[in-house]
Parts: sequence; C-alpha cells; structure tokens
Amino acid sequence: MSQSQPRVGRPALASWLSTGNSITQQFMAIGGQADFVSLAGGLPAAELYPVEAMAAAQERALTRWGSAILEYGPIEGLPALRAAVAERVSAASGRRFGPENVLLTTGAMQGLDLVGKLLVDPGELIVSQFPTYLGALDAWRPRAPRYEKLDWSLQAPGQDAALRQAKFVYAVPNYSNPTGVLVSQEERAALLDKVLAAGTWLLEDDPYLPLQFDGPAGPGILAHHAQRQPNGAYDGPVIYLGTLSKSLAPGLRVGWIVAEASLIAALALVKQSTDIASSLLTQALALEMIESDFEAQHVPKIVATYRERRDVLCAAASEHLSDWFEWEVPPGGMFVWMRAKTPEIDTDALYAHALQEKVAFVPSSVFDPDGALKSAMRVNFTRSAPEVLTEGVRRLARATRRQLEARPGRAA
Amino acid sequence: MSQSQPRVGRPALASWLSTGNSITQQFMAIGGQADFVSLAGGLPAAELYPVEAMAAAQERALTRWGSAILEYGPIEGLPALRAAVAERVSAASGRRFGPENVLLTTGAMQGLDLVGKLLVDPGELIVSQFPTYLGALDAWRPRAPRYEKLDWSLQAPGQDAALRQAKFVYAVPNYSNPTGVLVSQEERAALLDKVLAAGTWLLEDDPYLPLQFDGPAGPGILAHHAQRQPNGAYDGPVIYLGTLSKSLAPGLRVGWIVAEASLIAALALVKQSTDIASSLLTQALALEMIESDFEAQHVPKIVATYRERRDVLCAAASEHLSDWFEWEVPPGGMFVWMRAKTPEIDTDALYAHALQEKVAFVPSSVFDPDGALKSAMRVNFTRSAPEVLTEGVRRLARATRRQLEARPGRAA
Repeated sequence: MSQSQPRVGRPALASWLSTGNSITQQFMAIGGQADFVSLAGGLPAAELYPVEAMAAAQERALTRWGSAILEYGPIEGLPALRAAVAERVSAASGRRFGPENVLLTTGAMQGLDLVGKLLVDPGELIVSQFPTYLGALDAWRPRAPRYEKLDWSLQAPGQDAALRQAKFVYAVPNYSNPTGVLVSQEERAALLDKVLAAGTWLLEDDPYLPLQFDGPAGPGILAHHAQRQPNGAYDGPVIYLGTLSKSLAPGLRVGWIVAEASLIAALALVKQSTDIASSLLTQALALEMIESDFEAQHVPKIVATYRERRDVLCAAASEHLSDWFEWEVPPGGMFVWMRAKTPEIDTDALYAHALQEKVAFVPSSVFDPDGALKSAMRVNFTRSAPEVLTEGVRRLARATRRQLEARPGRAA
Repeated sequence: MSQSQPRVGRPALASWLSTGNSITQQFMAIGGQADFVSLAGGLPAAELYPVEAMAAAQERALTRWGSAILEYGPIEGLPALRAAVAERVSAASGRRFGPENVLLTTGAMQGLDLVGKLLVDPGELIVSQFPTYLGALDAWRPRAPRYEKLDWSLQAPGQDAALRQAKFVYAVPNYSNPTGVLVSQEERAALLDKVLAAGTWLLEDDPYLPLQFDGPAGPGILAHHAQRQPNGAYDGPVIYLGTLSKSLAPGLRVGWIVAEASLIAALALVKQSTDIASSLLTQALALEMIESDFEAQHVPKIVATYRERRDVLCAAASEHLSDWFEWEVPPGGMFVWMRAKTPEIDTDALYAHALQEKVAFVPSSVFDPDGALKSAMRVNFTRSAPEVLTEGVRRLARATRRQLEARPGRAA
C-alpha cells in the first residue's frame, strides 16, 4: 500500500512517508462505489446527524459572538467552550478542572498529532495498547517513535522497564479501537499505579465514551486519578482526549485535550505551530449544542440505533462466519474485532478477496506498528443499515471461502 | 523567551520545543491589556469582518448541503470548494488547474505544517527568503531543518549549490512578511529559472495577495510557470499557498495548497495523519462567500482602510522615528519593516522598553532562524485605528530614547 510520489528529479518526500499506508484513503474511495458494502471505516450513522439543531445553533452562535468568532484565536480555543469542557470533564471525573486544563483541537485526531509533536523525538518509546488505533500510528509516524506493547495484565517481562523509558503510554480503555474492549476497572487502576511509579505520561483516548450499549462504562483513568488527588491544581500524568464526533457529528471537528495546566500551555505552543488555532465558528456552534444539553436526548437515539446494528451484525456473523472467526460482543463503541480461528486465514489476503465481493473491512495488520498481525479484522456496525450489515457479512463469508481456496499450497 | 515545562520527574518535551519562542502567545496576552497599543500581531481590522454576510452564508450552506457537511471529509476538502479554488487560481495564473491540484487546509498556516511534514527530514535544507515569516519557522521547527538565505539577486556565492541541495525554496513575493516587499517580476522569473535548473520545489506563500494598495501585484511565480507551461496537467515545481484570512476573516480557517496532483495526493496522506480533515462546515461557508463574489465589493473597503492606516503610520513614523529608523512605504500587505540607522539600537532590548511604554512590535530576531538579526522591527498597521497608530508611534519613539539611554557603556 504505497502512496503516490512526485515525479522523478525533484527532492524526495520525508522518509516517514515510505512507512505509511493509504488504507483510509482506499476506504474513502471505495465508499463511493455503487453496491459496495463498507464495514471498514469508523463513521457514524449520517442519518442521525442533527442538521436542524446545528443550523439553529450556528445562527445563535454568530448572533451571540459576532466578529469575535471570526478572529484567529485564542490558540487554546474559545474560552467559554474551554470552560464548558472543563465542567463536563469535572462532572465525569469527580474533581475540579478549569479552562486552563483544556485545549480545544480539530477533533481528537489533532490531539494525537499535538501530543506526538510535544513529547516524541525520533527513536523514542511509546508503550501502546495493542492492537493500536490506526490513526494514532499515523499521527505519530512523522515523529518516528519505537513501540512496545502494553500488556494490561502488567505481568509481561520488561514491562516496568518499558514504562520507565516511555515518553507516554497510549490507551483507549472505553470500547477500544479496533477491539471494542472495555478495560476493567481493576486494570485501569493497576495501569495508573504503574504509570505513577514509572513517572511517565498516560494518554487516555476516549472518543467512544458516549456509545455505551450495555450499561455504564465506569470511571475513566482520569477519574481514577481524581479519586487519588481530589483537590488542588491537577498535576496528574493523564492526558485525556475527548471529542464531539461520536455524540453530535464528526464534521464539527471539535475535540479537546485535558491535562495539567503547564502541559496545556506547552501544547498551545505546538498548536500555534500547526495551524495557529482551530475555527472559533465551529467551537461556538459546539458550545451552543453543549449548553442546550442536546446530547441528553440525542445520544440515547444513537445508542439504540447502534446497539441494534451491533446485534444484527453479530447475529449474521454467528450464522455465516463462526466456522472461521471468533469475537466478543462489544459492550459499546463502533467495532467488532473478529479473530481467525485457523492460521490459514490471512486477513491481508482476505481483504483482496473481499474487495472482489464488494465488501470492505480493516485488516489487523494496520493496527500493528510492525504490520505483522494478520489474523484478525475490524468490522464496523455503526454506519450501515441492518440489512446492509447482513449482506456485508454474507459477502465476507464468500470472501473467506475464496481466500481459503486460493491459499498457497492448496492443490488447484 | 522560554515556554512552560511540565513538572520535574516526567519525561521531557521533544527537543525542538527548546528552540522555540513564545512571542506570539506574548502578543496575544498583551492584546488584552487596557491602554496597550499592539503593533505586533498580523491581525486584520476586526470591524471589517463581514458578520452579516457570513451569517447568511452559513445558513445557506447548511440548507444546501445538510448532513453531507457534518461528515469527516473528504480529507482533501469539500469538492465544490476545491473546484472553486481551482477556478480562482486558474484565473489568476492563466492556466487550467483542476480540483485534483487543490488541498484545503486549516488556514495557510496548516499548509506550512503539511509541506514541512511532507518534505523535510531532520537536518535537511530549506532555502528561505530572509528575514523569514515567523510562522513558517515555527511550523518547520518540529522537522528540525537547516536554513540558507535566499538571495533574490541570485548572485550570492554558493546559492546554486544550496538550491540543488534544498528540499524546497520558501518565498513570499507579494508584500512579504515581515518586510512588506513586493518582489519584482524580473526577480520572480529569475528565481523560477534557478528552481527549475536545480530541480527543487518552490513554496510560494501568498496570503497578502488581496491587499494591493498601490496598483496590481502582478503575476505570481505560479503564473510565471504557467506562461512557460500553459497546457496539460500541471507538473511544475511551485507549491502555492492561499487563504481567505485577509479578504474575509481569519476565523474561517480556510486556506489552500495548489500543486501538482501527485503532490496533493501525498499531502492528503499527511493531512489525514494530522487531523483527518478540516471542518466541511466552514468550507461550505467559504464556498458561499466565493460563489456570491462577496470579495469583489468587500476587498476594496479593506484596501482603502489599510491604505489610509499605512499612510498614517508612515507619516507618524516620519515625524517621530526617522532619526533612528528607515523604511520603505510598503505597496501592500500589513507591515512596515523599520531598520535601525544606528548599531546602537537593539530591537530585542527595545522590545522590553516598548512594553514599559505600553506598545508592542515584533523584533527582527524572531524572523531569523539563527535569532541574530536585532536591527529591525516589524510594525503592523492593519489592526489599529489611525489615532491609535499615531499614539503607538509616539510610544515607540519614547521607548527608543529609553533604550539608547540605557544601553551598556553609557554613563549613568
């Protein structure tokens, strides 16, 4: 999966680009084909985007703020939205955060980019939950880090040494991308202990928090730290990423970083170097949506829709894919992580057959910094209607049969 | 000018941050003080932001596009706006560009970040117009480049060799930041010759194009290339950056990169790694503004206002500062570049005195990759009303007197 290159005779692209992949662009291109079923992306259900509420909110926002939201910044974002996010995170974590703990970003994805720029020099270590969100690997590739796998049991040999060397630990405890796993409270607390002992940072990426299908997600790692340090200025190791992309709409491109105030100040310098500031127009729109408490009535609709789709997908998979794959039913989020039951399945090879059957998923190799994990696939259930999900699973079954028949060593 | 650091005991920040400066944040903080005159920033006149036209446009945009502009992307930006920008650049350059030549960015500043990520590995060379726009130096600092100065006469020893080694040449030919210089047509053509001969890229940064006070700016370097290659798919060396920040409002955060299609495809991969995509909401709003040809009636108002302010600033400077500084009256843009007539003036030292007099400018050292240039200052005239500009110049004169009196070696 190589990317396009400029014509010969001009200077070469930066070296990190040769390590990249273009799989997200491939998905997006595929998305436009007629009769194609994409179970690949991590996209919300577009029919649930609150267009009317957004239209009303953006009208209110420009009336309320006028030319103030047509300015460049502040770099850190609209102060009133920083305060609102601080309130939101305070309520969820049980301790007081202020606007000085919040930097607004162009989606949580920009938070990943900024944290990488802030902390990582080439060759430095990130300890990351494995398999690892593709977008995080993409965001940090220009910084050329090394990776060690986070073992949630914290028993792996060398884990303590790795944590001491790491610039930060990366974790998605709630309904992780790609696995959909909800990390247990005991594991969260134990990781926080280890992080504090090692004196490193912990990047808690929490985009899927609103998508709780089977009961509450429970306290995040930031909340665990808050229980230990309930008062005073926050100086904990957790750098927390949130977003409105899942509960409202990704096109807002409004996310946030919550961290100790001095780190937020340093991140603001990084953001200034990156795009000066995000648009205050969309931040003011986001503020209207938060202040009107729109999510309180809207998120339950999203959750009900996604829960049904998850169940339809898993039922179809039980019928058509269970000879070859196994999975846990995810208690939230957007993905089912299907693991091959036989080493004869290679999901990179399967991907090519799937495209021929007009269905797409994300092969596990792209969630591995080394690209070696080829035994699983990420299947999205939020974007497609139930009947499309069922058809997609049927196609995946046909593609799996084709891959097994076509594998090397099998007689023709 | 150091930035804040997280508390001792946690991993250090990336090494590039120790080379940074926090001067933009300082300006922004200063901006809020009562009775302070900031001639420092590069901010438009906020009273000219078209709030009502924008409000109408954003209502039209969401009605027109609905949920489509609440999606993540495309990464490259709203296709209709890419097409409109391609039209705009085609009209200005005299050759045909298509949407495939356009990537939309979060302001032109993000274009600088993306081009740095695309092309520069640590230690590689950028040949840059000198003094150099502070934001460009900031954007590329995480990539740790080396710099050589671009000599517009192209006669400097070693210039040809530097061009051959450079990953790209950086130039702001129209009303450059910080100098306000309008580079001559002959110099543009000669630079293009040299760039083509050297086989490198040329990054033409053109934010000030609309701000033409004394007649037309003339063809840009992209247009010079178009004259030589008027037909066919564009494969020239020019990577062109444009923006709506000066003609409409910076808060839109809508800019663009125009380049050969394969480079745009590679830049899209870089952008995906950075923030997935910019907000389509603001891009759709920008499209409405462009399609309604709002700038045709609005930009002349901006130009008339800024021309008057430039003249007021220069007149006050002639009265109060001409003993110590010299300058050319800039034919466009946002800045007057004042050069000290005596080596006894050090604009870093002057800056501290200026703050005591409640006036700010930008000292020349921040426009020098080496930080050594201390004989000039950038003075902005677009943000402040005429009477404020005059008062600011009076304060600059008092500050200059104080710096000269306080300099080392002078008897107390």
